[in-house]
Amino acid sequence: MKVGIIGATGYTGQELVRLLQNHPEVELTYLGSSSNAGAVYEEMFPQFSGLSSSLGKSFRQNALKLDNEEVPDLELLFCALPHGLTAGRTAVWLDRGIKVIDLGADFRLKDPAVYETWYKVHHPAPQLLPEAVYGIPELYRKEIVGKKLVANPGCYPTATLLALVPLLKKGLLQKDGLIIDAKSGVSGAGRSATLGTHFSEVNENFKPYGVASHRHTPEIEQQLSEAAGAQLMVNFTPHLVPMLRGILATIYAQVTPGVEEGDLRACWQAFYEGEEFVHILPQGIWPQTKFALGSNHAFLQLTIDPRTGRAILASAIDNLVKGASGQAIQNMNLICGFPENTGLKMRGLWP
Amino acid sequence: MKVGIIGATGYTGQELVRLLQNHPEVELTYLGSSSNAGAVYEEMFPQFSGLSSSLGKSFRQNALKLDNEEVPDLELLFCALPHGLTAGRTAVWLDRGIKVIDLGADFRLKDPAVYETWYKVHHPAPQLLPEAVYGIPELYRKEIVGKKLVANPGCYPTATLLALVPLLKKGLLQKDGLIIDAKSGVSGAGRSATLGTHFSEVNENFKPYGVASHRHTPEIEQQLSEAAGAQLMVNFTPHLVPMLRGILATIYAQVTPGVEEGDLRACWQAFYEGEEFVHILPQGIWPQTKFALGSNHAFLQLTIDPRTGRAILASAIDNLVKGASGQAIQNMNLICGFPENTGLKMRGLWP
Amino acid sequence: MKVGIIGATGYTGQELVRLLQNHPEVELTYLGSSSNAGAVYEEMFPQFSGLSSSLGKSFRQNALKLDNEEVPDLELLFCALPHGLTAGRTAVWLDRGIKVIDLGADFRLKDPAVYETWYKVHHPAPQLLPEAVYGIPELYRKEIVGKKLVANPGCYPTATLLALVPLLKKGLLQKDGLIIDAKSGVSGAGRSATLGTHFSEVNENFKPYGVASHRHTPEIEQQLSEAAGAQLMVNFTPHLVPMLRGILATIYAQVTPGVEEGDLRACWQAFYEGEEFVHILPQGIWPQTKFALGSNHAFLQLTIDPRTGRAILASAIDNLVKGASGQAIQNMNLICGFPENTGLKMRGLWP
Amino acid sequence: MKVGIIGATGYTGQELVRLLQNHPEVELTYLGSSSNAGAVYEEMFPQFSGLSSSLGKSFRQNALKLDNEEVPDLELLFCALPHGLTAGRTAVWLDRGIKVIDLGADFRLKDPAVYETWYKVHHPAPQLLPEAVYGIPELYRKEIVGKKLVANPGCYPTATLLALVPLLKKGLLQKDGLIIDAKSGVSGAGRSATLGTHFSEVNENFKPYGVASHRHTPEIEQQLSEAAGAQLMVNFTPHLVPMLRGILATIYAQVTPGVEEGDLRACWQAFYEGEEFVHILPQGIWPQTKFALGSNHAFLQLTIDPRTGRAILASAIDNLVKGASGQAIQNMNLICGFPENTGLKMRGLWP
Repeated sequence: MKVGIIGATGYTGQELVRLLQNHPEVELTYLGSSSNAGAVYEEMFPQFSGLSSSLGKSFRQNALKLDNEEVPDLELLFCALPHGLTAGRTAVWLDRGIKVIDLGADFRLKDPAVYETWYKVHHPAPQLLPEAVYGIPELYRKEIVGKKLVANPGCYPTATLLALVPLLKKGLLQKDGLIIDAKSGVSGAGRSATLGTHFSEVNENFKPYGVASHRHTPEIEQQLSEAAGAQLMVNFTPHLVPMLRGILATIYAQVTPGVEEGDLRACWQAFYEGEEFVHILPQGIWPQTKFALGSNHAFLQLTIDPRTGRAILASAIDNLVKGASGQAIQNMNLICGFPENTGLKMRGLWP
Repeated sequence: MKVGIIGATGYTGQELVRLLQNHPEVELTYLGSSSNAGAVYEEMFPQFSGLSSSLGKSFRQNALKLDNEEVPDLELLFCALPHGLTAGRTAVWLDRGIKVIDLGADFRLKDPAVYETWYKVHHPAPQLLPEAVYGIPELYRKEIVGKKLVANPGCYPTATLLALVPLLKKGLLQKDGLIIDAKSGVSGAGRSATLGTHFSEVNENFKPYGVASHRHTPEIEQQLSEAAGAQLMVNFTPHLVPMLRGILATIYAQVTPGVEEGDLRACWQAFYEGEEFVHILPQGIWPQTKFALGSNHAFLQLTIDPRTGRAILASAIDNLVKGASGQAIQNMNLICGFPENTGLKMRGLWP
Repeated sequence: MKVGIIGATGYTGQELVRLLQNHPEVELTYLGSSSNAGAVYEEMFPQFSGLSSSLGKSFRQNALKLDNEEVPDLELLFCALPHGLTAGRTAVWLDRGIKVIDLGADFRLKDPAVYETWYKVHHPAPQLLPEAVYGIPELYRKEIVGKKLVANPGCYPTATLLALVPLLKKGLLQKDGLIIDAKSGVSGAGRSATLGTHFSEVNENFKPYGVASHRHTPEIEQQLSEAAGAQLMVNFTPHLVPMLRGILATIYAQVTPGVEEGDLRACWQAFYEGEEFVHILPQGIWPQTKFALGSNHAFLQLTIDPRTGRAILASAIDNLVKGASGQAIQNMNLICGFPENTGLKMRGLWP
Repeated sequence: MKVGIIGATGYTGQELVRLLQNHPEVELTYLGSSSNAGAVYEEMFPQFSGLSSSLGKSFRQNALKLDNEEVPDLELLFCALPHGLTAGRTAVWLDRGIKVIDLGADFRLKDPAVYETWYKVHHPAPQLLPEAVYGIPELYRKEIVGKKLVANPGCYPTATLLALVPLLKKGLLQKDGLIIDAKSGVSGAGRSATLGTHFSEVNENFKPYGVASHRHTPEIEQQLSEAAGAQLMVNFTPHLVPMLRGILATIYAQVTPGVEEGDLRACWQAFYEGEEFVHILPQGIWPQTKFALGSNHAFLQLTIDPRTGRAILASAIDNLVKGASGQAIQNMNLICGFPENTGLKMRGLWP
């Protein structure tokens, strides 16, 4: 299957190449980059040295040369661009029969007014929003199958929703007072060099950012509200951890009266039974981000504090894999009819 | 003033030596260590090479040799031992006229039953508890002055209490539903090599630990309850950050009806006016642990999320300085009548 | 093919499991550990959660339970034990028709007297040394094919030999005065928690160790001497880098009179033509350890300093993959007749 | 004494402020910055929050506001600007009676032609070069005393020269074949955010840079040649370590025939007797960069490899303190007649 990537030089773009070069059903035939057009991919990124000679024929033809022309004929296109740059071009691609998986934010929020409030730009293609599906396979598999346009979720929402959606759907948690205290490695900030991601400013440092204002907030609330069957709001506070990859969300929730820890755990276990990528850890073993490093796996744990009665949940993923490129490939597998774990079988790097 | 340290080879012990060797009023005359008796301090810890020749006369006499004999005649003794090892010997020292500052947990909890519940040992000297004062100078200065036995607070409680005590005292926050999501560098785990602090297991990793069970919980609750004038309970979740030093506590609280962000800020500003070590950052600038690295300073910020109405507070310190040895010296200065910032003027290392 | 691992809980053991669980020709049927017998592998190492249900039938039968009994019938056994623990048992395995790949040091040195000098123990099975082959496929492929006992090289030697062997074979470098200044991530020190690998002692720190005494010295000299056709000695200085994985060797050598940079480069290019795992970077692009992170790839660069006339070479690998478990699997592929890159196609993680 | 800094917002500028705010003889009265003129220093750098109220009167007057006007009347000015920006203005300052300590490269090389070859710009003030003194107090104390213009050395040269100058002066090492393999933390690259110092590119990564071309090479060679009494050349290879601060130089040298390890050690010991900031570690204890973290101390060790006969030396400093701002203050103390360790007594941060 001929597949392309636009935005191939960012971190989620590089991660797509890393994972797709090992995917048996995919022929990577187009790598697009507006900022680096003309450059040779494996020269820009020596971790891919010699890649052109180990890939398929059409890939070899263009020798991994980055392109910024018209997207060629493909069966599927991954868009790894910042918000606002994808939606305006998507209708053309869909019309040409190209399936689109957008790793950006353009199709995640169903209400264009919410998008405009949080992203401060007009939505470039509100008419496409009803065609897009929000792509977390473990939560929305049935809706995803058969779709041509997938909104690949944000990294923080993925970690958060995997923990909360099953429990809210079953009514085990109260809708009010959800607090999501999340922590991410620095790769989530992307490849642009800024003072805020300069090694000397970030290393040996821990800080909150985007307090009460992060753009993943409405995305989390949209999906949680749907699960709960009623509009809800959350406190979401992201923090920057001096490490490369990984997200851990620590979540505080009030349980519905009468609900016990065993009920929560049983709900998770039933919901995720048979899922390859979601692991409910044995009682007392809490997620660590490194369990997931470089892999598409997610790790969950919870308890109810017997003193305060409040539930504490933790969820860990690799922000660039399950939180971005790995999940995008999982979505591709799903809409293209491949086994869902194709190309995603590697486990986390330890140490 | 002749001063000694027992437990001089742990990280808080080393940090005391680092700070005290620069303190103009102090002559370090005794370094005790049961596990390393006989070793020469500056040979164990090359960062102190040549220290004996740059310190005062009595220090030079024993050439920084670690001792485990009877504590000699001193005016003040710092105890940097694990809980349970200090309290049983304290009465003797006090009787000999030695002031005692305990960096361990033995004198922090006023109720020995609470101590025994959380620390799983009988309290070795409950009769001394009324004589001990809980030592955060900015919060309890009046009580500390004139005391002979100081319970130096835990690192997490220090960060937490600096943020919450003034607001609870003024009744600006509700007593229920306080959530403290705290993050610490690895030095807080001490100098013992374990798999849990092995570089290859901890680096590039982020994890919660002690969920709903950390021993700093009752210490936080004791002081917050006193401030609030009523018994309260909190959710306290510590996490391990892959860095050496620093604590950041992110705190979620419901405000008293009618209270606005400006009220909270004004309360802090009035409370900490003139304090050298506590900084309320300009609006929108959130604390980073590295602001405090190697220094006795604390950094605070807060906001009220306009959507949920909940207050979000953050507090950052260096766990080994304001969270341990620096605060211990600040307490020493206070009970000995030195200017409170003596020996503590250094600012944070950046980068 | 039924394969087992003894020493499955160390870092090279874990890395073997990570790589082999994705190898299409291998059925992992035995995981041995003396220290953790009885434990369930995926419970000890949550990065492998659910592994038993995703592996083949025989693996599922014993549910990844660690064993310390007699090694069962296997076609191939990886030994990931410290030196001295493997050689004494190897003859029995070979007699039973089990191929053996030893990731330890027991079969690397051809002269048992050299082994005893550097490792301070008697060699447990000197009679097997002639049967063992030193396994770097790119350098010794012909000798490896058909062997039943492979000495998998040390991590530092692998990085060093890939750079130097081709050049010494061709006589382009002088035999005297070779200096190897090597730097390694901390995972090379293994999984045992010691003060020397304690996060708080190692992080934000850089240090030499084993100066003029590291055990990889004779291994490097043995292979370089063979390449040069004459006994030679090197200065080898390892250093510890505060990172998890990766080795970079910076090598200083005097060139044979008349030799120019182009000659050295041409020699490398001819020698490594068609090799999938060894990359000679474009002129001016120097190796970084992260190019190789998590992958079996090696990266080389060199120059001749025009002022001093000395050649400077650099070589980077992942110490746990090309420097240990990945190369072991490459050796397995070679002696078992699988395509040499089977199970090893993943590229380095970036970032 | 009224002191100013131009280039006060870079890392060496910040480090000067950190150290000088604790210096009893200094009144910081001018902070210059072309890029941040008008900003308030303690707002840009929250680690200095409240600094204005804890400093002397003249400092408080201008409230740490960054200035880019004419340098006011001062007794001494630290210049922490990139090369080429200081020399052209220095004559005016000297004429006004202001002593100048330049942390940049403009006055380090005595031959303007060498400067122009390596720095690719014309020297702005070659006539001042004879007035400048190269400022490593332990090596050149007599020449420094009484000077008005100090060229503060580079970080790599400081680490290197402390190890080599005494031995070359005594003729214990051969002049040919010196190899300096040096490793630095990332702060040495300064505060400008670039892809090369972006956290996600640098962390968990180790790489050489500036191979055979780094600008500290001629500075090292100039001072070593002077010590050896003959022109010599070195191989100097810097590397980037994923940590904030610290330099370790590993040096390889051939000893003069007949020289033994004890001779080298005795030479160091005699040379550095009574020096507060230079420590020759006990035999077998090798320098670690963290011994020096945040302090002005340097740590040395050496051995002769008995097998190859080559000397291996290691030298560790903090690149921002002994390698820059701390040494600048030590030079100030020296030319102003203060005790040389004034304001520099703090020991390294551990952990």
